[in-house]
Amino acid sequence: MTSMPWPGGIAYGGDYNPEQWPRHVWREDVALMREAGVNLVSVGIFSWALIETSEGVFDFAWLDEIIDLLHTNGISVDLGTPTASPPAWFFATYPEARAVNADGVPMGFGARGMASHSSPAYRAAATRIAGELARRYADHPAVVMWHIHNEYGVPVGEDFSDASKLAWREWLQARHGDLDGLNAAWGTAFWSQHYGSWEHVGVPATAPSVINPGMLLDWARFTDHQLRECFIAERTAIREHATQPVTTNFMANQHGGCDLWAWAREVDIVSDDHYLWAADEEAEIGLAIAADLTRSVGGGNPWILMEHSTSAVNWQPRNIAKRPGEMARNSLSHLGRGADGILFFQWRAGRSGAEKFHSAMLPHAGTESRVFREVVDLGAKLGRLAEVRGSRVVSQAAILWDYESHWAQGLEWRPSEDLGALERTRAYYERLWRDGITIDFAHPDQDLSAYPLVIAPAQYLLTLEQAAKLNAYVEAGGTLVVSYFSAVVDENDRVHEGGFLRPLEPALGVWVEEHLPMREHAVGAVELDGYQLNVDVWQEHLVVTGADIVGTYTAGPGRGLAAVTRNAHGSGTGWYVSTRPDAEGLRAVMQRVYADAGIVPLDLPRGVEAVTRRGESADYLVAINHSEATVEIPAEGTDLLTGDAVAGLLTLPGGGVAVVRV
Amino acid sequence: MTSMPWPGGIAYGGDYNPEQWPRHVWREDVALMREAGVNLVSVGIFSWALIETSEGVFDFAWLDEIIDLLHTNGISVDLGTPTASPPAWFFATYPEARAVNADGVPMGFGARGMASHSSPAYRAAATRIAGELARRYADHPAVVMWHIHNEYGVPVGEDFSDASKLAWREWLQARHGDLDGLNAAWGTAFWSQHYGSWEHVGVPATAPSVINPGMLLDWARFTDHQLRECFIAERTAIREHATQPVTTNFMANQHGGCDLWAWAREVDIVSDDHYLWAADEEAEIGLAIAADLTRSVGGGNPWILMEHSTSAVNWQPRNIAKRPGEMARNSLSHLGRGADGILFFQWRAGRSGAEKFHSAMLPHAGTESRVFREVVDLGAKLGRLAEVRGSRVVSQAAILWDYESHWAQGLEWRPSEDLGALERTRAYYERLWRDGITIDFAHPDQDLSAYPLVIAPAQYLLTLEQAAKLNAYVEAGGTLVVSYFSAVVDENDRVHEGGFLRPLEPALGVWVEEHLPMREHAVGAVELDGYQLNVDVWQEHLVVTGADIVGTYTAGPGRGLAAVTRNAHGSGTGWYVSTRPDAEGLRAVMQRVYADAGIVPLDLPRGVEAVTRRGESADYLVAINHSEATVEIPAEGTDLLTGDAVAGLLTLPGGGVAVVRV
Amino acid sequence: MTSMPWPGGIAYGGDYNPEQWPRHVWREDVALMREAGVNLVSVGIFSWALIETSEGVFDFAWLDEIIDLLHTNGISVDLGTPTASPPAWFFATYPEARAVNADGVPMGFGARGMASHSSPAYRAAATRIAGELARRYADHPAVVMWHIHNEYGVPVGEDFSDASKLAWREWLQARHGDLDGLNAAWGTAFWSQHYGSWEHVGVPATAPSVINPGMLLDWARFTDHQLRECFIAERTAIREHATQPVTTNFMANQHGGCDLWAWAREVDIVSDDHYLWAADEEAEIGLAIAADLTRSVGGGNPWILMEHSTSAVNWQPRNIAKRPGEMARNSLSHLGRGADGILFFQWRAGRSGAEKFHSAMLPHAGTESRVFREVVDLGAKLGRLAEVRGSRVVSQAAILWDYESHWAQGLEWRPSEDLGALERTRAYYERLWRDGITIDFAHPDQDLSAYPLVIAPAQYLLTLEQAAKLNAYVEAGGTLVVSYFSAVVDENDRVHEGGFLRPLEPALGVWVEEHLPMREHAVGAVELDGYQLNVDVWQEHLVVTGADIVGTYTAGPGRGLAAVTRNAHGSGTGWYVSTRPDAEGLRAVMQRVYADAGIVPLDLPRGVEAVTRRGESADYLVAINHSEATVEIPAEGTDLLTGDAVAGLLTLPGGGVAVVRV
Repeated sequence: MTSMPWPGGIAYGGDYNPEQWPRHVWREDVALMREAGVNLVSVGIFSWALIETSEGVFDFAWLDEIIDLLHTNGISVDLGTPTASPPAWFFATYPEARAVNADGVPMGFGARGMASHSSPAYRAAATRIAGELARRYADHPAVVMWHIHNEYGVPVGEDFSDASKLAWREWLQARHGDLDGLNAAWGTAFWSQHYGSWEHVGVPATAPSVINPGMLLDWARFTDHQLRECFIAERTAIREHATQPVTTNFMANQHGGCDLWAWAREVDIVSDDHYLWAADEEAEIGLAIAADLTRSVGGGNPWILMEHSTSAVNWQPRNIAKRPGEMARNSLSHLGRGADGILFFQWRAGRSGAEKFHSAMLPHAGTESRVFREVVDLGAKLGRLAEVRGSRVVSQAAILWDYESHWAQGLEWRPSEDLGALERTRAYYERLWRDGITIDFAHPDQDLSAYPLVIAPAQYLLTLEQAAKLNAYVEAGGTLVVSYFSAVVDENDRVHEGGFLRPLEPALGVWVEEHLPMREHAVGAVELDGYQLNVDVWQEHLVVTGADIVGTYTAGPGRGLAAVTRNAHGSGTGWYVSTRPDAEGLRAVMQRVYADAGIVPLDLPRGVEAVTRRGESADYLVAINHSEATVEIPAEGTDLLTGDAVAGLLTLPGGGVAVVRV
Repeated sequence: MTSMPWPGGIAYGGDYNPEQWPRHVWREDVALMREAGVNLVSVGIFSWALIETSEGVFDFAWLDEIIDLLHTNGISVDLGTPTASPPAWFFATYPEARAVNADGVPMGFGARGMASHSSPAYRAAATRIAGELARRYADHPAVVMWHIHNEYGVPVGEDFSDASKLAWREWLQARHGDLDGLNAAWGTAFWSQHYGSWEHVGVPATAPSVINPGMLLDWARFTDHQLRECFIAERTAIREHATQPVTTNFMANQHGGCDLWAWAREVDIVSDDHYLWAADEEAEIGLAIAADLTRSVGGGNPWILMEHSTSAVNWQPRNIAKRPGEMARNSLSHLGRGADGILFFQWRAGRSGAEKFHSAMLPHAGTESRVFREVVDLGAKLGRLAEVRGSRVVSQAAILWDYESHWAQGLEWRPSEDLGALERTRAYYERLWRDGITIDFAHPDQDLSAYPLVIAPAQYLLTLEQAAKLNAYVEAGGTLVVSYFSAVVDENDRVHEGGFLRPLEPALGVWVEEHLPMREHAVGAVELDGYQLNVDVWQEHLVVTGADIVGTYTAGPGRGLAAVTRNAHGSGTGWYVSTRPDAEGLRAVMQRVYADAGIVPLDLPRGVEAVTRRGESADYLVAINHSEATVEIPAEGTDLLTGDAVAGLLTLPGGGVAVVRV
Repeated sequence: MTSMPWPGGIAYGGDYNPEQWPRHVWREDVALMREAGVNLVSVGIFSWALIETSEGVFDFAWLDEIIDLLHTNGISVDLGTPTASPPAWFFATYPEARAVNADGVPMGFGARGMASHSSPAYRAAATRIAGELARRYADHPAVVMWHIHNEYGVPVGEDFSDASKLAWREWLQARHGDLDGLNAAWGTAFWSQHYGSWEHVGVPATAPSVINPGMLLDWARFTDHQLRECFIAERTAIREHATQPVTTNFMANQHGGCDLWAWAREVDIVSDDHYLWAADEEAEIGLAIAADLTRSVGGGNPWILMEHSTSAVNWQPRNIAKRPGEMARNSLSHLGRGADGILFFQWRAGRSGAEKFHSAMLPHAGTESRVFREVVDLGAKLGRLAEVRGSRVVSQAAILWDYESHWAQGLEWRPSEDLGALERTRAYYERLWRDGITIDFAHPDQDLSAYPLVIAPAQYLLTLEQAAKLNAYVEAGGTLVVSYFSAVVDENDRVHEGGFLRPLEPALGVWVEEHLPMREHAVGAVELDGYQLNVDVWQEHLVVTGADIVGTYTAGPGRGLAAVTRNAHGSGTGWYVSTRPDAEGLRAVMQRVYADAGIVPLDLPRGVEAVTRRGESADYLVAINHSEATVEIPAEGTDLLTGDAVAGLLTLPGGGVAVVRV
């Protein structure tokens, strides 16, 4: 992992698309950037058509000019490779390089992102322009890093083209070795799907019924792999000429098709784009999840918030404008959770195109606007936080996040369509967020021994090796909480032998005889410590082989059966929650879990978020008040934003933020 | 109709897919089958790829082995032809044999059932393997019957391929003789659709507006016909070598695309697959409908429940597990309604593939499970019912069920999208089910004179010939109840001359001047015998030409007009109900109808089902308590399940079942 | 504009499709038409296959015969060109002439309207048959006018075929001159969409993300243009032989794809088809909108209601039958709003085809029916209104209606999907309808100085030139009301410089810093004149630069900001309403607006509609009582329907109509 490459403290800026504007606007732009404290902008992300004007013909003049202008004004450049949107001439020359949907329809031009990531023509063109850019700007002092492509997997991940089919067969051969391996992994004896020749293996195009889930799980892996191969090819092309660190912007919050654990291993710097889900009135919780996930896939290192929005976006059903102060709260939450750079899409709102209603640092309304004033203010705030750069977040627990399991659980013909991996992850996360407990996300393959508490909210797919690790984790003293519909299948979506959850029976002291999904809108109940807990969606028929029954079903299909169990195993404890309480309902369970794990939840006022980053010489408490009320929280030190001393109690006005050097 | 071919009493077993398991599991399987009382399994249904490993190359070794093993253990085999799922090599060799959807997209491989049923290549391949199987197993003592294909029409019925187009033109020539006949039948003078050449007649592919309904009705008939032709071709191929009776498993409950009246004429034994609709909390009523329909299309003869589930299925939005005892109740209800065999999909739950979450006789949890214990118990119960085999159900009334009318009513651009043929059928059926009246379903072409009561809940399409029969039925003393939107069109979806319902005016003494659909959520009312009946969805403007007005609209668009009428015609009575009460609301009408028909409803406790089968020497009362309360019902004889004498009152505990030899 | 060409007074009749019936029915038809007072029928609209039986082979015999028969009976003919539905032979010969959808799927035969309007083969065939008809019937005394095609744009407007692509490029070259113009207009610098060659410009087929909005706005213009070119080509072909006036039937109420301002300039007589939206319990308001729009695009001249329905239609989800008297109320409302002809689809209900459940003048029930009796009665009523023919509607205000703005606003990725141009137009219209104020619709390019009040309910797209006109209109004394999300973009969907609404700042004294969409189901409030107004969907952050604040947000994201403003500008007044009240909530605003404009609303009873037409020598008050109560309204003169004198007060029974010569 590379340390951050720009000079100074926290990076501040955004995507900058000068090609949409005349020269006189460029000069205004850089002046206003300086006013706002901008020190890093991303350039060139959608500029292919204007850089390579026809095949092999490059025009770098305008790019030279703007990069020089930025440099002259002390603004560093994160230089994009424009490969997320090949030009019209490319698809006219190589129509076979278009991505194709499951119905066999090749994508049309006029939007973006329509290339087949398996197309040799696309890869050749993408690496050529990446290489040419690297050759030209390898030594430009303004260019501090490379921004390869944009948001891999969006809008197109899956591709059913002929090029994809050929690549798919190669990938399958590499994964499964031979057809026996493939047939076994996919269970092709079912429905007469046995393959006798590689030539017969096709892409999972539109079919009359549900497609083999083993095939579809591999297809998700392959799709992710192909995208990453494109990234690696561009990185390699850049590395032939240039040494600046390389990133690509993830979409932790929005796109689940990329296994960010694997992606993070390929980049020099982890970066993420984050957009609030406007319909969620507590979108700050989703933000915290995304930020923690981004940090976690990067091994806890600082990262860059490559894009977020100053106010509304434009692509949701209803694009809610941010309230006054909300942009700063969002930014500080990212920073508190490890971001060393706070960037936006985009610097100046564009007048044309599909995203003209997306907010920007400089909105359509211009400088005399709430948004620009807050942008300037945020720039000033971040300027006071330079010393936070490089510090690391302090966490107390881990929640498992495994893309392969999410992909597998998301396939069709599951016991209930109300099952949702992200729903359960959010519910447990929200419980901990409200309890002031900072977590890391973790992959089940990784060493978890440092965490006193590990939660597995949605580990539908769990290999025997992973289960063994979790059992050992508990045995060695850890506290493990497992939610329902976990440890059901192996890496090929094959049901584990011996019944659901069997691989975790050592740690949990229970296994699952039968799933008991509930009807739509049906409500059940669990009695737990004398408290009646409403639950819905799901119950299970548990076979208790060693655990203590903590909660029992009193209503619903599982009535009379065990619902929540606690198992002493070795030096640790394994909890199992076989039904769906909401985050509030989880409180009763988690209070007891915290006690087992030796974790003391913070007693924060409702809506207050507090995270600590640990630097070489100090801790930094980042505190955010999402409520409208003035609150006080315990803290001791100096508020870096105001310079005021904090003696015991930090007062945060409604909507306020603080960063206290402890 | 063939008598049942297996030795012993009631058949018990399920689909068995040994190709998914290693040899040591086979041995465990047959041992457990014996423990459970299994005496019949269906083998080979999805085994094409493993039997014909490449074109014309057959491997029967494994199949020989398992059939011998089953035979050795006294288990009979219902041998499947695996033609519902051709192998990958088949589609690679004959890509033109893929079914094509209305958009022209050929179906992809990876699920099942993607063959064009009009493809010569498919038919050749299907009859070849069916013939080879018959040649090999014609004389095997274990193989007692043939199970051709699987669930015809699911997942693919309609096919817009070139092969289908050619077959379609041939079928149309056979049906309509010449183009004049076609143009007249379809009314092609409308919208300039006149055909001057057979070459111009295409399949009803995606069009910019609503397609000619005469064409679409014929398309439904053609689709059904092509499937049946495939069945007949396989049957013929089998008959060249083998004499065991032939069946194919219907889907009376789920798939309306096959005219089961016509299908039943082609099979030696009628069999049906039945899966509860999990969202329906009284799914036992839907079960009873399907069972009665299956028996009825087979002329009242005993039939086989070829598949049902021990607990949840896997393909519905929420797959509700069966409650303890529910599997037995379901099984006995099928048996009570004429089934001589109770089989399941499937014997052992599969670890891989799209249906791994489907329950099985031997679940993932293994033998130490509620499900397996109930399976063993059910086997024992059925073992005590051998003497019921061959007896016939006693019914008191008939409900008309006509696929052609259902197809026609289901086309687009009807007066209201709230009209539903199956909805009305269920409503009237449910009324009779609650009143303890056992019914047959009947086709309007058939002789109905044996029934004191005939109900036509949804006879939108009624030919003049069929109407004349119904008029004669009433004249001769029958009681007929007709629900709204009936006798609207003829066999080509042409509106009858003289106004809606005119063909039944003799029997009913009314006709319909205008339909009066109601707005969404609007509620109207009918006053009937001083009782205020809530109705919705539909009212009509009746012209009463002879009937007595029994109910009058007091709210809704028909306010002040006749709603329910009763007409004396000859020696019988014709009732017309022009609006939609629910099953409860129908009580007021049906009480009077029963009196006209001389039927005395049983006064059963709520949720109790009682059906009688009549054997050579005894009647068998099958009684099922779907409620949770203990109930008593009148009965006299011996409970075959317990051996206890029943003297006057049969006591059924909540959820209990009994079979009383009367 | 041509004066109406048929002899006598108000035209009465409908579509007549004799080709669906045998000769003896023709004779019955004309006899019944005479009974009903029918004097004009439209013939031949869907007769292509029976007129041109194969390419270039014409059979006019049957058409001669029916036209002669109608003529003999004194019924005039509006002769259709049957080009909305080419025959089967046409598409068999020219498969490339099929329209293609965005996925590349060519439309199938069996419905109607599947031709590509850019296809040279289609245009050649359409003009050939139009010309042949004109040659034959140019001098037939029965044929008084030409009815070209049918409902242009329905069911197919957009076409992604190769023919369309070629035409599209030509159209773009004509519009934008060169590629620089195109690239600037569409803002192709965004997302790397720059075009370097015309050959690279394609149709906006299915793409992986949102397509360039400038492209899509041009695509809507192009689609409209191509349809109109087809119309002009047919008109030209007719004009080579015949001189009768030409019309084509618009769909003002249902289809927004045709810019009726442009279409009305091409026809000799404006005509419209109108069908109630059955789910709307006050569909008479929608009817009035459509009638006013139809009249307005035609410059206020009388027009023809070419189709409406006697009772239910057949293509909506629930097709509600008209209540007794409703057909007459509908007809009189059209007449009151300028229609000189009242025609129906169709004369006789067809037995076959997709529209057999559509009501007709002669229903399936025949002459002994409520509908036919009302048809005869309406014929008699219209017979008494001959003197109204040619008179013109008196209006007091204008509402802007601009298809280009509607198209632009309807594109994807707007700030909120709850924004609806037609929704706001209906809300303001409904307010005025209830206040008894008759309006014209107007285009923002036109001279508005004659109107004391102009309302712009949805002028999202407003060019700088149009804004200047509106500013001048106010300055000169006009009263202007502008609703939210207006003056946002220019003619290429580019955001105006300086912030939203800036072009109207002179007239309104405000501009919009930021949009504040609201969450689904959220409710906000505005305080206005001490009254608390509930609002939803939308608020805005206004910058008030000169206006008076009339209403202030008290709840919602704009809390504390200005919501409704009033600006004195020159001699006039500019109102801005930045949020969404319903029609009732608009009352408080509009009362003050009326006062500014010097308009006095009529104090009509709820549900009563009153419109005045002004003739050469008299005014005609058309009054309609949509309520069930008897009402009195002020009037003086003679009721032409009854011949009764009206002295001061006109009494209208529930559901009644009157036409008073004042």
